[in-house]
Order: sequence, then C-alpha cells, then structure tokens
Amino acid sequence: MLRQTPTTLTALLAPLPAAWLEANEGPGTWSPRQVVQHLIWGEVDDWIPRLRVVIEHGTERPFQPFDRQEGFRRYGDWPIDRLLAEFARQRADSLAALDALVTVDDLGRQGRHPEFGVVTVTQLLATWLTHDLSHLTQIGRVLTRHAGRDAGPWRAYFSLLRSPG
Amino acid sequence: MLRQTPTTLTALLAPLPAAWLEANEGPGTWSPRQVVQHLIWGEVDDWIPRLRVVIEHGTERPFQPFDRQEGFRRYGDWPIDRLLAEFARQRADSLAALDALVTVDDLGRQGRHPEFGVVTVTQLLATWLTHDLSHLTQIGRVLTRHAGRDAGPWRAYFSLLRSPG
Repeated sequence: MLRQTPTTLTALLAPLPAAWLEANEGPGTWSPRQVVQHLIWGEVDDWIPRLRVVIEHGTERPFQPFDRQEGFRRYGDWPIDRLLAEFARQRADSLAALDALVTVDDLGRQGRHPEFGVVTVTQLLATWLTHDLSHLTQIGRVLTRHAGRDAGPWRAYFSLLRSPG
Repeated sequence: MLRQTPTTLTALLAPLPAAWLEANEGPGTWSPRQVVQHLIWGEVDDWIPRLRVVIEHGTERPFQPFDRQEGFRRYGDWPIDRLLAEFARQRADSLAALDALVTVDDLGRQGRHPEFGVVTVTQLLATWLTHDLSHLTQIGRVLTRHAGRDAGPWRAYFSLLRSPG
C-alpha cells in the first residue's frame, strides 16, 4: 500500500489546473500541492530515519521531532509534476531502505518517541500508512469542496459541503 | 478529472486485501467495495440518463430518482478487479456519450430535479465530479481508520481517529 501512494496521488493530481492544486480549506489549512511537499519531506526526514534509530539505538535515543512545514520551504516553488516525480522517487528509496533494514522479526522492536514514549516498529509502519491515507483523505476533502462550488442545489446532498472548511 | 477517477481508484484499491475492501465505519456505512458498486450504477442509471433528459426534454420531464443501493444488488458478488474494470469501462462510455450530447453552448440548459426543481447542465456536471471526489474522500476515511488500528499512541495525531466512525 505504501508503494501505491505516489501512483494514486499522481492519477488524482497530475491533471489538475493550478486553481485546484492551490485550493485549501481556509487560513492555515493546506492545499493539495502543499500536502505533496509535506509528504516528500516525510520520506527524507521522518519514516526511514526513525526506523534507523529504532534498529540502531532501540529505546535509548528518542526520535528527532519532525518539522511539518519544512517541505513547504524546500519544495514550495516546484511544479506539481516535479513534486509527484520526487515523491515517487523518494518513496521508492524509502521502501528499498525498509527492505534492507527491517524483517518480520523486527516488528516488535521498540523505539522512543519524544512525546509518546515507547513505540514499536509495527506502530511506526502503521502510522506511516495511516499518514498517507489521512493526507489522501484531506486532499479529497479539499477537492470535493472546490468542485462543489458549482453544484447548485445538489450541494445539499454532500455532508462535506455543509460542514465548515 | 472525471476521466481520471477509475485510474485513481484502481491505484488505491486493486492491491488491497479483502479485509480492507470490506472495512466500513459501522452499521449502515459503506465499504470501499460497495462504493465502487454504487459508482458503477451511477454511470448506468444516473449521470448520462439525466443529461439526456435535460437535452431532450428540458424542464418538462423531471429526472427519475436514483437508487443508491441498486449497485450493491447488481454487483454485490463481483471481485474488486472486475468492479474496477467495469467502472473504467462504464466511465469511458459515459464520457463518450457526454462528448456526443453536450457542447459548451449547452452548459446553461435547464432540467428539473424531482426534489430541487430547476437545475443546469453545469450544476449536473459539477455534481458528478463532486460525487466522485466525495466518495474518494469516504474511501480514504475508511482506510485511514482501518490502518490506524495498529498505530498505537500515534493515533492521537489523526483527527479522523478521534472522531466517531
């Protein structure tokens, strides 16, 4: 499933005009383009680096905090095709690193989260996938609201168009 | 964007094990597999049939109500690969019919919704896309919640895992 996320996001986002890629749910919320920037930075600085800490240091060394905005600074001016290609490349690298780092026997190994304390490799992997899916859901929500502007009275059928955002 | 929806859903759903395809958000809510069944039936009995009524009868003939559960009955026992292929085929047929039926000059033409009264071709097309995106969002939400079961203390980071469903 982790392998498929770049394919899914590319199918969804590559054909979109700029106005859709820049749409958001109000001040302080993220556009689809920003979500991809954030996902790339997670590949670079979050998932595999944390797995390495667990495998190499167990619970002795807490994870570095992850900066959720750093992707915006690093990739802010990249066009969507470049962002999607970079995410696909980084994800492929991450999964190759995962294969080299972790076997089924490691799934119960423990690391230390700076806020939550002891966590396992299984929980880290499940969080990685949950994170992908929750951002896909977020993008879907932003796009639903953007498309719904022109739906006229049919707007009443969509719960997302009745709730704030 | 309407053309991309089968590709996006295939990338997301084709590799999933049965337990993920059958997951839902509680009694009366839909699984990802049921959503695809519902989307296929929309291609057969909703969007293009309603466009035809607008083009051929204007506001004189109200649309037939659409049965949101009929897809479950017709395609309930189909495996996911067959469902996704059928959705792709039906969507391609719909878009060919759309090209043949509607030009830019028709976008303001009016039809009659049985509940809402007068609606336009633009509103019908925007609703079709909003409907695709809202069901993609729904599938993302179901899968996020399913993945999140194993995320341990990280669950606290995901608003979807704190809300009901």
